Amino acid sequence: MSVHREFVPNNEKYVSSFDKGHLALPPARHLTVVTCMDARIEPASQLGINLGDAHVIRNAGGSTKEALRSIVISQRLLGTREVAVFHHTGCGMLTFTNEHLRDKVKSEAPGNEVVAKAVDSIDFLPFPQLEESVKADVKFLKENPLLLEGTTVTGWTYDVTTGKIKQVV
Amino acid sequence: MSVHREFVPNNEKYVSSFDKGHLALPPARHLTVVTCMDARIEPASQLGINLGDAHVIRNAGGSTKEALRSIVISQRLLGTREVAVFHHTGCGMLTFTNEHLRDKVKSEAPGNEVVAKAVDSIDFLPFPQLEESVKADVKFLKENPLLLEGTTVTGWTYDVTTGKIKQVV
Repeated sequence: MSVHREFVPNNEKYVSSFDKGHLALPPARHLTVVTCMDARIEPASQLGINLGDAHVIRNAGGSTKEALRSIVISQRLLGTREVAVFHHTGCGMLTFTNEHLRDKVKSEAPGNEVVAKAVDSIDFLPFPQLEESVKADVKFLKENPLLLEGTTVTGWTYDVTTGKIKQVV
Repeated sequence: MSVHREFVPNNEKYVSSFDKGHLALPPARHLTVVTCMDARIEPASQLGINLGDAHVIRNAGGSTKEALRSIVISQRLLGTREVAVFHHTGCGMLTFTNEHLRDKVKSEAPGNEVVAKAVDSIDFLPFPQLEESVKADVKFLKENPLLLEGTTVTGWTYDVTTGKIKQVV
């Protein structure tokens, strides 16, 4: 595996027409997007976000629980005041449970107590239902004492087969 | 704040030329990119990654420690075998300490014990030096018992004023 060998030539093309060196650190639109790491997701083009506009937090599933550290930094130090949470159809998180993944990892390192202990310590945050998970993640954020009062929080789904978004909450 | 009101019209334009509904869940290039949530970062264009190619994990700083849950899911369930870690110049994480941010949050909610307890429980993972933080995050991953043996892990910086990447490790 060596996809990284293509980064420098690809980046040289990007640099040759780069004209965004003046952009400021704080997101221009005061927005934070939380979404999944899924390879079929690309928030900039799918939502019409320009470079410099928004913080983009991505993790397996688009968990706001895991994103909390970043959201506090985004709001308190960099002035964002709106959070949009996206989960998507066909998400890997809909396909397994903690028990399933932990058993799989342990079966790949039989008898390895270090691996067993490490994997048992992680909540992988899978979810069984898409729209419910969006609602739960928005609720978690809205009820969190560290979220700034007055923050606009919206929740959405993205359909990987059509490219369409839908507001859930 | 209501940037989200622009999502639907922007997305309708995206959908009108969308032709990627066939892409599979596992990343085609077996790659995971870990990078910062910074608004000036856009891994797809900056590295030449196509839709469907790679998992993209983003959080404040591009922490591999926080990304571990997602990386395990990415490798064990979705077949990725290479991780590229990017931190960047002008990163917000270079500008504060845990103590500074905790004090700021507490001063914004004076006497609120719930807020104080919540913010004191978070390690915000700031770092004082860019290349050292890339090296430390790559090291954390390479030494982690949950990373699959034989995984290619590379570490890079991205310069937000020039658009250029540089391999550190």
